Amino acid sequence: MHVLNKNILSQIITARPAESHKGSYGRVLTVGGNTQFGGAIIMATSAIIHSGAGLSTCATSLDNLTALHTIVPEAMFIPFDSEYKLIDAISSADIILVGPGLGVDENAIRILQTILQHAIPQQQLIIDGSAITIIADHHEFFPLLKKLHPIFTPHQMEWQRLSGLKISEQDDIKNTLYQQQLQATVVLKKNHTTIYHRDGSISQLAIGGPYMATGGMGDTLAGIIAGFLAQFKLKNYEYVVDAAVYAHSAIADEISKEKYVVLPTDIIADIQVFMKRWVAPHNK
Amino acid sequence: MHVLNKNILSQIITARPAESHKGSYGRVLTVGGNTQFGGAIIMATSAIIHSGAGLSTCATSLDNLTALHTIVPEAMFIPFDSEYKLIDAISSADIILVGPGLGVDENAIRILQTILQHAIPQQQLIIDGSAITIIADHHEFFPLLKKLHPIFTPHQMEWQRLSGLKISEQDDIKNTLYQQQLQATVVLKKNHTTIYHRDGSISQLAIGGPYMATGGMGDTLAGIIAGFLAQFKLKNYEYVVDAAVYAHSAIADEISKEKYVVLPTDIIADIQVFMKRWVAPHNK
Amino acid sequence: MHVLNKNILSQIITARPAESHKGSYGRVLTVGGNTQFGGAIIMATSAIIHSGAGLSTCATSLDNLTALHTIVPEAMFIPFDSEYKLIDAISSADIILVGPGLGVDENAIRILQTILQHAIPQQQLIIDGSAITIIADHHEFFPLLKKLHPIFTPHQMEWQRLSGLKISEQDDIKNTLYQQQLQATVVLKKNHTTIYHRDGSISQLAIGGPYMATGGMGDTLAGIIAGFLAQFKLKNYEYVVDAAVYAHSAIADEISKEKYVVLPTDIIADIQVFMKRWVAPHNK
Amino acid sequence: MHVLNKNILSQIITARPAESHKGSYGRVLTVGGNTQFGGAIIMATSAIIHSGAGLSTCATSLDNLTALHTIVPEAMFIPFDSEYKLIDAISSADIILVGPGLGVDENAIRILQTILQHAIPQQQLIIDGSAITIIADHHEFFPLLKKLHPIFTPHQMEWQRLSGLKISEQDDIKNTLYQQQLQATVVLKKNHTTIYHRDGSISQLAIGGPYMATGGMGDTLAGIIAGFLAQFKLKNYEYVVDAAVYAHSAIADEISKEKYVVLPTDIIADIQVFMKRWVAPHNK
Repeated sequence: MHVLNKNILSQIITARPAESHKGSYGRVLTVGGNTQFGGAIIMATSAIIHSGAGLSTCATSLDNLTALHTIVPEAMFIPFDSEYKLIDAISSADIILVGPGLGVDENAIRILQTILQHAIPQQQLIIDGSAITIIADHHEFFPLLKKLHPIFTPHQMEWQRLSGLKISEQDDIKNTLYQQQLQATVVLKKNHTTIYHRDGSISQLAIGGPYMATGGMGDTLAGIIAGFLAQFKLKNYEYVVDAAVYAHSAIADEISKEKYVVLPTDIIADIQVFMKRWVAPHNK
Repeated sequence: MHVLNKNILSQIITARPAESHKGSYGRVLTVGGNTQFGGAIIMATSAIIHSGAGLSTCATSLDNLTALHTIVPEAMFIPFDSEYKLIDAISSADIILVGPGLGVDENAIRILQTILQHAIPQQQLIIDGSAITIIADHHEFFPLLKKLHPIFTPHQMEWQRLSGLKISEQDDIKNTLYQQQLQATVVLKKNHTTIYHRDGSISQLAIGGPYMATGGMGDTLAGIIAGFLAQFKLKNYEYVVDAAVYAHSAIADEISKEKYVVLPTDIIADIQVFMKRWVAPHNK
Repeated sequence: MHVLNKNILSQIITARPAESHKGSYGRVLTVGGNTQFGGAIIMATSAIIHSGAGLSTCATSLDNLTALHTIVPEAMFIPFDSEYKLIDAISSADIILVGPGLGVDENAIRILQTILQHAIPQQQLIIDGSAITIIADHHEFFPLLKKLHPIFTPHQMEWQRLSGLKISEQDDIKNTLYQQQLQATVVLKKNHTTIYHRDGSISQLAIGGPYMATGGMGDTLAGIIAGFLAQFKLKNYEYVVDAAVYAHSAIADEISKEKYVVLPTDIIADIQVFMKRWVAPHNK
Repeated sequence: MHVLNKNILSQIITARPAESHKGSYGRVLTVGGNTQFGGAIIMATSAIIHSGAGLSTCATSLDNLTALHTIVPEAMFIPFDSEYKLIDAISSADIILVGPGLGVDENAIRILQTILQHAIPQQQLIIDGSAITIIADHHEFFPLLKKLHPIFTPHQMEWQRLSGLKISEQDDIKNTLYQQQLQATVVLKKNHTTIYHRDGSISQLAIGGPYMATGGMGDTLAGIIAGFLAQFKLKNYEYVVDAAVYAHSAIADEISKEKYVVLPTDIIADIQVFMKRWVAPHNK
């Protein structure tokens, strides 16, 4: 088990080549946000844009269109219940993040199924929030899932639902066993978040704190992971996940020096400045 | 009568244990905000989230969804006129705040009745704004109320309606008499707000000022009370109310050094930093 | 003719008495904002709230509800095409500002007529923007107007429409003549805005500048006038108008040291701090 | 070929004459923003207003009204699918910017055609984003276009569509040849953006960087060009375009010292302060 430290930041956050354009930094599709949980997908999308992805489209309920555009006009929109538009958006995405605020109703299940059917292994799929809960109840999705090698970002209760392991039973050995069966990366969110990589290695976070215990924090983490993956295109993409997870908590730690509780929107507001500070020195 | 001083802050605002998650800091349900008064419930909900509650759901008019999410995407939403969803949200809440911008029409009365029928004594109910006016007119709600030991947050005119005491007659003896009959905590908002506790003790505020005399200030206070109760779980919960009331005015006092009038949204923006400054030193 | 100077600020902006509440600082009703020009009434209402009025209700198109609440959740709302609600709101207002973004269609004319029929001389009526244009075309409104002694805030073209005086003809003598017939205060907005008072005195602004030449600036001025009148209740209310007009341009002058163009929303953001700096020293 | 340097800023950004009003700084009409791409036209309009245009109206989908007003209440609105209102707005505009987020569907084509039919050579037309793609597919619009001498702001792929020149073939000689046939100014957006002027001269940008490679950056540039043209009325308007293009990247360069990626909304927030710093010294 490897405890993550700040070195991961400058290994991953590198200076951009002059000859590049927005396409160079990835197209991200976010899918989620029903009427009840719209803030989740908005925060995830905003985190993606602030962390530097090139182009981001948010597939969500029409009820969330105006709040999305007001908070982050840089995002594009499609209605998530238009199957035609969703399939089209999937086909042009490099990274797909599904789940924040998606809900677990019939519509949500149908949307998730559409993604699993149309995503391809060359795309990176991140499965968060309600989408994890849906998959836990729909084992028929597993064959589709395995070939996509997705990244799951469950909190402990969601991991219990997905893996069948009770929170008290969740240890590295049992977690790894189930994660390996999933052929997926698992970012298990908790006090000292643990990342189970597909190659069997385990990364652990030793930073972050209870000032982060507030709704929307996981959506923001999922967004930073997506934003990092969109632009930092390493073959060993799991180091990029490590860096994103570390950055999320490192930003929160900084803010917590001034604020009793750290809100997701506080983190989003600080991503750009944080990343600038950690650009690999030899690239400055 | 006890005059509140700054010591109450570090007694209540304590460092968070590392082993905790958003559920540890409470689930709050806010209910209010018709089409006319939507800002009230949005400000209350935003105050709750900025003061550190773990998870907040706002039951309000669909007309307020987008402004809610834009101002505070961390909040979840349900339409307050869906009785089914409201009952479901009540059942999973630790704290329920009803009243800001609720109005007094048939719909508002029905919503309040649903809450009184489904809330249980283990939940903390806070009754503010129009909900106080409704109760003043609906004495049939009193039996339901008494077993819930709610916190009322009336201004003087609302207290007149509820207690029958004219503003000129409102003194500690008469107020206590009626408050004890209600089996409730009463936060009587005025120049030098007075808090009547269930054990008969009285706390008085000696800070705050006329720069706070602006619409929405009470909604914000109710939100801070709810946010504090959600996370600071003392058996003597009324000290937590004291701390919230004190914090609200102490923040305003600070802002008033720079601004002629202090707006509710100014207070909300400063809660996190203020709380950080008053964390109990031994916990730092 | 009196050239306004900074002394007017500390004469009018006085410390608030401790024993006061939001009702002490006035209830303002703003009326305007059709679908095309919604920003105007939102900026006016926001200026009112930031300048310290106690309670503000905005009667506007339902299309503007969400932007209003997002920008200034402290405002209350009524749909301006509900005659019943409008009459009710008029009856409880101390100050009525009509016109910003109202438009000149049938609906706008009907709304203006409702106000003129239901407002009473004890209320202060401010007539701005499209409402001035409507009145210029509806001389049948003049008898209703005269008994209300309104404040008009035209720019030069609107004053031409209202008075019949071409811009090239507009001088103090001719302007006064027509203004006296109107039995109104006229704030004639131009480079060096001139205020024609009902007692025949004339105040002139010598500050401000072309960095203020941007859409919405007049709506914001009308809002500050309304906000000042709501709370500073002098018998000689026209000094309050002088102070508001001076404050609006003085804030812009300060901002212009840092910004090439000064936006209305920039001014609104600075009102509270500006007023604090000019509170009468003996009241500090 | 002329490499642009900072001198262009103080040549163009001049102090405003005291005797001026919002009409002096131009009326701009922006047209674009379907439901999917609403943020684009909102950012363009906001850039125009922050760069100092006198009056701005945004013709867009009704779906974008509230986000527009929340982000920039200084803007006016018309629904872009009302042909009657669009023609009316065209007739009163000094500058027309069409394309950001317009899309390429039937409705978009009809809107663009309306503009081309009703705009006159005395107005300055800027054609951006999807409108360029539409024109590439509708050669029947060319006769209308040529007499309007528009400014095109394509990125390299859009220029390929319009000119038929593959990106690898695009050099100054071939670009100039096609641009001269169009009788248009072409701002070719890329690493080191190149501006092809109607007089055959070529300006090149040597600043800016890959931190600008994010969605919405081009919409913001188009807005700054429109805002500059609205107020800086030189006979040689193309110097104004040079200054706008330079300013856009110079602002980004400054922000990039603090932020890893520069968002369009970051640039918009800094325009006013940037312009103030570069006002021609002799005019200060």
